[in-house]
Amino acid sequence: MKVYVIGLGLIGGSLSKDIKDAFKDAVVYGFDKNPENVKKALEIGFIDHAFEMQDLSQAEVVIVAIPVDAQQKVLPQVLDRIGDDTLVFDAGSTKEKLCKLVANHPKRRNFLATHPIAGTEFSGPEAAINGLFQNKTNIICEVEKTAFKLQEKGLEIFRRIGMRIRYMDPVAHDKHIAYVSHLSHISSFMLGKTVIDKEQNERDIFDMAGSGFESTVRLAKSSPAMWTPIFKENKENILETLQEYIQNLEHFKNLMEEDQFEEVFKTMENTNHIKTILKGIQ
Amino acid sequence: MKVYVIGLGLIGGSLSKDIKDAFKDAVVYGFDKNPENVKKALEIGFIDHAFEMQDLSQAEVVIVAIPVDAQQKVLPQVLDRIGDDTLVFDAGSTKEKLCKLVANHPKRRNFLATHPIAGTEFSGPEAAINGLFQNKTNIICEVEKTAFKLQEKGLEIFRRIGMRIRYMDPVAHDKHIAYVSHLSHISSFMLGKTVIDKEQNERDIFDMAGSGFESTVRLAKSSPAMWTPIFKENKENILETLQEYIQNLEHFKNLMEEDQFEEVFKTMENTNHIKTILKGIQ
Repeated sequence: MKVYVIGLGLIGGSLSKDIKDAFKDAVVYGFDKNPENVKKALEIGFIDHAFEMQDLSQAEVVIVAIPVDAQQKVLPQVLDRIGDDTLVFDAGSTKEKLCKLVANHPKRRNFLATHPIAGTEFSGPEAAINGLFQNKTNIICEVEKTAFKLQEKGLEIFRRIGMRIRYMDPVAHDKHIAYVSHLSHISSFMLGKTVIDKEQNERDIFDMAGSGFESTVRLAKSSPAMWTPIFKENKENILETLQEYIQNLEHFKNLMEEDQFEEVFKTMENTNHIKTILKGIQ
Repeated sequence: MKVYVIGLGLIGGSLSKDIKDAFKDAVVYGFDKNPENVKKALEIGFIDHAFEMQDLSQAEVVIVAIPVDAQQKVLPQVLDRIGDDTLVFDAGSTKEKLCKLVANHPKRRNFLATHPIAGTEFSGPEAAINGLFQNKTNIICEVEKTAFKLQEKGLEIFRRIGMRIRYMDPVAHDKHIAYVSHLSHISSFMLGKTVIDKEQNERDIFDMAGSGFESTVRLAKSSPAMWTPIFKENKENILETLQEYIQNLEHFKNLMEEDQFEEVFKTMENTNHIKTILKGIQ
């Protein structure tokens, strides 16, 4: 199986690693706009060869794993160049605009719109790890618009690398993912900023930070190059979640100001309910 | 060494476990206002015997590991009952009021005000684990007010369970800990609340939540019974951090609304700096 991967960072690299493990006949070709990343990917060994865009006609599977703004430029070019039986899938964190963009492309049926919900706060080829997708959810949008045989090929890949599948329409995907993923990145970045701004001249203070702070601020290590386009793409949904988050913080602050600590207790107690919900993620 | 532990939850229990491992002659006595917890602690085996408050005169070391509001009631009673050579230390997340409260107690020199910065989001005797304090920081306040011999005894305990020590005055402690611990609990609780409020009728949505959301919302599982008194005690400092956090979120929201995505990028890039800072925690 000839797999062509565009974008050799955390996601493209980890997919390559897992696919090489899961398909013994897989030969992985890699492309990245940064030649340094191609070199690193070859050295690490998760790609077997470099390729150029004009080689895409040879591909059996093409994976587009680049920031969501770049995707919109690159995906139509990919579809223009592939053969009739090639499966193309992406891994972007927003789906509505991309699906609209290719809705009328003659090769629309070769494309499977997917969002594997997996990642770490690290980026680049060195961040690629085996098993990243094991037991994680892959959201597939507009599955009915993909040729049935290519759906099957995609599902076989996701099954072998350990993913469970959920189907969702792109509008619902973008709305919900704003709550359970995009908002937590902003809350984490702003927490990091608040603490750094305040404590910048007191580095020793971070000795006081425990694992709780570390966990809450972990996502503030994430790549701005990846996340800025996501925030831009999903702007309206994210602004709605941010508005609600800020309102909840204001309300909590008011309760504290007014010494309504019984209400503070209740609010936290009700939110403890997240324990039960998160069990589903484990 | 006869160690009397008041409060048999996550912290009291974990301290008991580690002290039993580190001091082969340690006999641990336990007290909890909830008799069920005493029973569980005996079953788990991290205490050897139950005790009542009037037995405290027998203690060589007393550990007070209860919510910060209860501490203020209990600590003076403990100091009233101990012998001249007994070391008493606490584990509370706020220090200023407690230190003021006992400043003039005749047994002030028997008390060491400490804040071991360690924990998990779980609570109760079953949450107690071995090694919780390994490589963690213990903040000691007003060390000069503790008898030198008892300082030594305390330090020996903390050394053997693997803690590093930082000295700090109580006012500075409460101010800084609001940033690196208390604020992240509120940001996490409000993130959990925002998502639950929105998605309460769509449980399936949580299938979309990945490890990023889980990490950011982890602290929302924490005990309201422990955290409400902390928020009450450290109200002024926390309100200041909350104000700054909300301002940063508002600013980020404004940048998005005005399509200033270059600034969004820069803000995140500057905050990535948290990577370097957090290395100190590892």
